[in-house]
Amino acid sequence: MARKASLSGFPEWLPEERLIELHVLGVLQRTFELHGFSSIETRAVETVDHLLRKGEIDKEVYAVSRLQADEASASESGLALHYDLTVPFARYVVENAGYLAFPFRRFQIQKCWRGERPQEGRAREFTQADIDVVGDGVLPFRYDVELALAVVEALGALPIPDFTLRVNNRKLAEGFYRGIGLADTAAVLRSIDKLEKIGAEKVGLLLRDEVGADDHQVRLALDLAGICTPDTSFVERVRALGVTNDLLEEGLEELRQVVGEAARRAPGRVVADLSIARGLDYYTGTVYETVLNGHEGLGSICSGGRYDALARKGNRTFPGVGLSIGVTRIVSRILSQGFATVSRSVPTAVLVTLADDESWSQAQDVASALRGRGIPAEVAASAEKFGKQIKFADRRGIPFVWFTAQDGSHEVKDIRSGDQEAADPASWSPPAEDLHPVVATA
Amino acid sequence: MARKASLSGFPEWLPEERLIELHVLGVLQRTFELHGFSSIETRAVETVDHLLRKGEIDKEVYAVSRLQADEASASESGLALHYDLTVPFARYVVENAGYLAFPFRRFQIQKCWRGERPQEGRAREFTQADIDVVGDGVLPFRYDVELALAVVEALGALPIPDFTLRVNNRKLAEGFYRGIGLADTAAVLRSIDKLEKIGAEKVGLLLRDEVGADDHQVRLALDLAGICTPDTSFVERVRALGVTNDLLEEGLEELRQVVGEAARRAPGRVVADLSIARGLDYYTGTVYETVLNGHEGLGSICSGGRYDALARKGNRTFPGVGLSIGVTRIVSRILSQGFATVSRSVPTAVLVTLADDESWSQAQDVASALRGRGIPAEVAASAEKFGKQIKFADRRGIPFVWFTAQDGSHEVKDIRSGDQEAADPASWSPPAEDLHPVVATA
Repeated sequence: MARKASLSGFPEWLPEERLIELHVLGVLQRTFELHGFSSIETRAVETVDHLLRKGEIDKEVYAVSRLQADEASASESGLALHYDLTVPFARYVVENAGYLAFPFRRFQIQKCWRGERPQEGRAREFTQADIDVVGDGVLPFRYDVELALAVVEALGALPIPDFTLRVNNRKLAEGFYRGIGLADTAAVLRSIDKLEKIGAEKVGLLLRDEVGADDHQVRLALDLAGICTPDTSFVERVRALGVTNDLLEEGLEELRQVVGEAARRAPGRVVADLSIARGLDYYTGTVYETVLNGHEGLGSICSGGRYDALARKGNRTFPGVGLSIGVTRIVSRILSQGFATVSRSVPTAVLVTLADDESWSQAQDVASALRGRGIPAEVAASAEKFGKQIKFADRRGIPFVWFTAQDGSHEVKDIRSGDQEAADPASWSPPAEDLHPVVATA
Repeated sequence: MARKASLSGFPEWLPEERLIELHVLGVLQRTFELHGFSSIETRAVETVDHLLRKGEIDKEVYAVSRLQADEASASESGLALHYDLTVPFARYVVENAGYLAFPFRRFQIQKCWRGERPQEGRAREFTQADIDVVGDGVLPFRYDVELALAVVEALGALPIPDFTLRVNNRKLAEGFYRGIGLADTAAVLRSIDKLEKIGAEKVGLLLRDEVGADDHQVRLALDLAGICTPDTSFVERVRALGVTNDLLEEGLEELRQVVGEAARRAPGRVVADLSIARGLDYYTGTVYETVLNGHEGLGSICSGGRYDALARKGNRTFPGVGLSIGVTRIVSRILSQGFATVSRSVPTAVLVTLADDESWSQAQDVASALRGRGIPAEVAASAEKFGKQIKFADRRGIPFVWFTAQDGSHEVKDIRSGDQEAADPASWSPPAEDLHPVVATA
């Protein structure tokens, strides 16, 4: 990313950068489909009322209105661009409940918009890739485990450094706080959320001032937040704090299942991290956050959790669990750090040269024969000297150029090695690794 | 499309409908890449100034603004959602000219927004798939031929009825009108554009009233508009009208090349249609429109043309030629007319059943082994009776269910035929046609 976006917060990629983004999107889509998730898209706009139901983000929302609104369009006012894919998905589930089979597994890869101050890792227009499972009335807890494993598999297939999926559980936290006599869970979480920023001492002061915690309560709350284990040993460490509460027990058991299964299937990639506070406020059980190891400052690249009621329709409740991958955040970092390379910048594998202007139609026949067998080919722009046409291919990274002699015989040249051989447009193929641009980890 | 969009003009698809849209998008992307076009995306927003440069569409534009704008965001005002992909592409070319190799071939598949009155075939949010070639200073005419052939190939691979690509040429029309003494080309075109709607007689009156044409001029203008040939015979028919003009000759020769080459390579799919007026106003040479045969009322499903100056940067001019496919318009029609079917509504090929709740982890091992070999698999939601689990698969169209016995042996059942056989998760594969949902022409 040598270039700067011409509109701050709205990144655009060059063709070779876009190939890396397409690779990332392809890996995610393939992985989600292998896990049985169906693709859906929702409209870019929601009603402002629906968007703001979750509260506290009104300043970040982009409103949409007809440039020259008249009376006829008054009914349209109150629209805004979606800022995530969860809120639109909840609406989609309610509207289409009669057409969906539950538990419904869906993935959704779309742009979102937030009017926040742009910074590295935080754009105003960005692509999210979400997977969720939503049930009708009930949703077995095991999906909390399954979805964690699906995203670990998806992220693990991307050209990025190692990452850590940090998991916590709202029941565990809330049960623990209640167990030590702190009833205002939201207020405690707001304080704990500042741990990384202001440190334990100042968080302790906050807990005293804003929640009215005493020394013992502060110590226990901070002790809990200090627990982070790559396996199920967090259970014993929480128990050692001597707090008992039914909700706490439920949360401990849920988190034990997620982390235990993950430690077995994806060792080293999932930790129980009881300091995670952000998100606990929205979710009702499991909560996930993901950091790129060594790039913690980038923020979470994949977050989510469990909602007891993702959506409601009359008496019906639709519980859900899901995660959202920050595609633009990940691709920006891949590009700025050079984590990946692409073998060429265009899809074309073969440039069919022109001996003279009259041979254009014949050259199209050759290109057409190659395309018919799945080989991306284009015809040279004009019948310049062959040297110029080869240079044209070279500048784009097109590996092969094709020559047709006046007697109708064909030759193809690998412009990297200089090797040239007789070839038949009906049967010649490039090596498999040259057929399409290949993205590799740098 | 039994369902109605919950917000008029903003269609959303069910998962099985989305599979058909994904098929259409996949066909387009593959065809474009085979022809050497690079994928790019541009941001959804442009400055209002840039969007309105082409004029006359201000009422259709959706403005975007922060919901709670403050002083800090004042600089953001003046943004709007793009209504096509040509205007954003022109900006992208100018901004990135130093990083692109010309002639630059790009495809771009994105949502666009227009605040028009919704009707069948006209949504407020819709996906366009554009291909363009843009040159630096010059762009050989042959790209006008090549792009027509590329879209004919792309559209021909879609599950839609036969279509006709209608081609005209601005130079031909303008030269002809000048040749008969009508200098106000734009005004003549505005009248001719109404031919289909109001008929020849009323267009004649318009030409008299608004352009000041005499009987002879009216007759010639209408004669020209009446010419429509599936081959190059239009040339003789125009010449038979006895009008001479240099620009007319240039236009005749260009159109002859497009239609001649197309008649040879895609017989019956391209016609020279000299009644096409809409578009001539914007473009400077070739103009394309495409109708689905028998569905002319739907409007054009693919339009475009040649710009002598798609973009300018100081003294530099970037000529371009391109076409834009109306994906949402096409997909809506495929769905409403049942032109295509999909073999199932979910990606999953195999449902791994649960003998009891304790076997969940073992079932995940089976699913994981299948996925590792590219077979989409999911594990049943809960250990209900096998009959219920099979019904769960059946409702989704999942063709295979997997059973693991207590002794660790495996069997897989094709729930359509009822056939059940021993199977090994490390080697069993479904028939190729059952691996993924297959979209077929109905």
